[in-house]
Amino acid sequence: MALSEFTLINQYFNKQVDAAFPAILGIGDDCALVDVPSNMQLAVSTDTLVETVHFLSNSAPYLLGHKSLAVNLSDLSAMGAKPAWVSLALTLPKADDSWVKEFSKGFLSLAQSHSMQLIGGDTTQGPLSISVTVMGLLPKGKALKRSGTNVGDDVYVSGTIGSAGLGLIKAQQTATDALDEDLKQYLKPTPNIDLGEQLLPLASACIDVSDGLAADLTHILNASGVAARVFHKNLPMTEGVKEHIDELQDALWPYSTGDDYQLCFTLPKALTKNKTIVELTANKSITKIGSIEVGDGLIVVLPDGSEKAIDKGFQHFNSSVSETSHDK
Amino acid sequence: MALSEFTLINQYFNKQVDAAFPAILGIGDDCALVDVPSNMQLAVSTDTLVETVHFLSNSAPYLLGHKSLAVNLSDLSAMGAKPAWVSLALTLPKADDSWVKEFSKGFLSLAQSHSMQLIGGDTTQGPLSISVTVMGLLPKGKALKRSGTNVGDDVYVSGTIGSAGLGLIKAQQTATDALDEDLKQYLKPTPNIDLGEQLLPLASACIDVSDGLAADLTHILNASGVAARVFHKNLPMTEGVKEHIDELQDALWPYSTGDDYQLCFTLPKALTKNKTIVELTANKSITKIGSIEVGDGLIVVLPDGSEKAIDKGFQHFNSSVSETSHDK
Repeated sequence: MALSEFTLINQYFNKQVDAAFPAILGIGDDCALVDVPSNMQLAVSTDTLVETVHFLSNSAPYLLGHKSLAVNLSDLSAMGAKPAWVSLALTLPKADDSWVKEFSKGFLSLAQSHSMQLIGGDTTQGPLSISVTVMGLLPKGKALKRSGTNVGDDVYVSGTIGSAGLGLIKAQQTATDALDEDLKQYLKPTPNIDLGEQLLPLASACIDVSDGLAADLTHILNASGVAARVFHKNLPMTEGVKEHIDELQDALWPYSTGDDYQLCFTLPKALTKNKTIVELTANKSITKIGSIEVGDGLIVVLPDGSEKAIDKGFQHFNSSVSETSHDK
Repeated sequence: MALSEFTLINQYFNKQVDAAFPAILGIGDDCALVDVPSNMQLAVSTDTLVETVHFLSNSAPYLLGHKSLAVNLSDLSAMGAKPAWVSLALTLPKADDSWVKEFSKGFLSLAQSHSMQLIGGDTTQGPLSISVTVMGLLPKGKALKRSGTNVGDDVYVSGTIGSAGLGLIKAQQTATDALDEDLKQYLKPTPNIDLGEQLLPLASACIDVSDGLAADLTHILNASGVAARVFHKNLPMTEGVKEHIDELQDALWPYSTGDDYQLCFTLPKALTKNKTIVELTANKSITKIGSIEVGDGLIVVLPDGSEKAIDKGFQHFNSSVSETSHDK
């Protein structure tokens, strides 16, 4: 290696940050040491991104640094947790100075924007792969789980659905426009940390949409022992996605595309008039798409009134590079 | 994949264990949730093992499962921490049922022997690689660090040094004997968790020997701003390693071989007669090999009385598969 691992870590990753929960001991010993406040619980999640499986070869390292942390922050947001610490296991074919520099900028910039501290990890040689473990904090007993929804609750999503799936198609094409909203959603997703914290006292269940809305909402339904009816006309989509499904003549396409990193959650109907929910709905941060019913499985009501039952194994769209392997 | 990720995880990894610190929420939601007792601190460490870089292709999956956790437990032992939770990011070329079954047995058997709970992770498709994040607990303010040693302290190691390095050479040969102590040390290292906890109130500094004794002891010296003099005649070695260095006519060979996962630590001289230290020394669990001096760097005193200064970048032995990339 041109640069030793030690140099790489010290040069690009071991930077002072304005951390919300400063570690007692950060990078540089056998373990990092942190204090969990006595009124808080620790939320932990791990996600791995592998070249050609989860991202295209020759992906821009800055965006990859951002995305490898963003997909993990998305898991914290789905529990309503406040980001605190992160550990990075980076496997690289070679110690490419400029690549690592750009990757670290993308990674640390997103960490800093959430006052999160990189406390350790491992840098190894091998096929390009990034495994991140995030740690967040929650008031004791307050997490947003998948199992809390009840018959009669409303089903919501944040942002738009299917956009990252279309962004992936655009990224695979040669001519790409960095300002395209679908492409941006795929390349540089924004985790819904603030929204997760706002929903913490309100939502009855929550999950992040990483494997596709149908698969992820079904996780909530199975964990809670209920069914859901979603009205396709209510599904928030970008103009690009609307045009794409018109071309495909396939309304169900956006229900199976991954990588959206939006939140899908349920709310007791009584909260429809809650001030936070009214405001979030008004500014289109969140959209009500359906409701929870007795039974099991997901039914999508199409604009013509016909109903499609979507089973758990629903795989409508297969891509060579898609988020199909996140643990649930 | 023959088996879906979900099936793999549920079938082999999502098992009830007798956990010392049961998670509030384990595998199966966006995050795991754990409670850190209010008088404890959390110690966190991550290590990645990559095929052909850290282990030979076609390594037995049971032993790989054991070793991927053992190398991480070794980091907890070096801080004196009690194992609590572990997260596993497993990247596999294909969902090979029998491979995963054996791997999970090796991994979970070691976890169970330390009452440690697997709380989550990620299973992805890609080149074989295992990234593990361990979490342990320590009484607040009590960790064994690298930075606490003082001039006059004695330098100790646990077990034997160089044995795993010789085990690697043996593993690369076709005829191998599973009962060979060097081979066993390489293939199935035993983390020194109990020893770490015993040393917690005693040692002034501690590190685990993963990258070679010279490199790892030098980390203590640099962190503490001191030098060390080690007497080669005191270095604990197996008969195999003694024969190997005689053949090589190179006494310094075991100082640069990795993968030992022993502890190297320093003790104030006043503790020489401490009951625990006397007992551990008597049963050869630990051996005094030298002492801390004013200055910087490591000096090895050879049997003929000559002295060799070993600098930080000391790389005496290069192997195609060795533990050369663990973060320090």
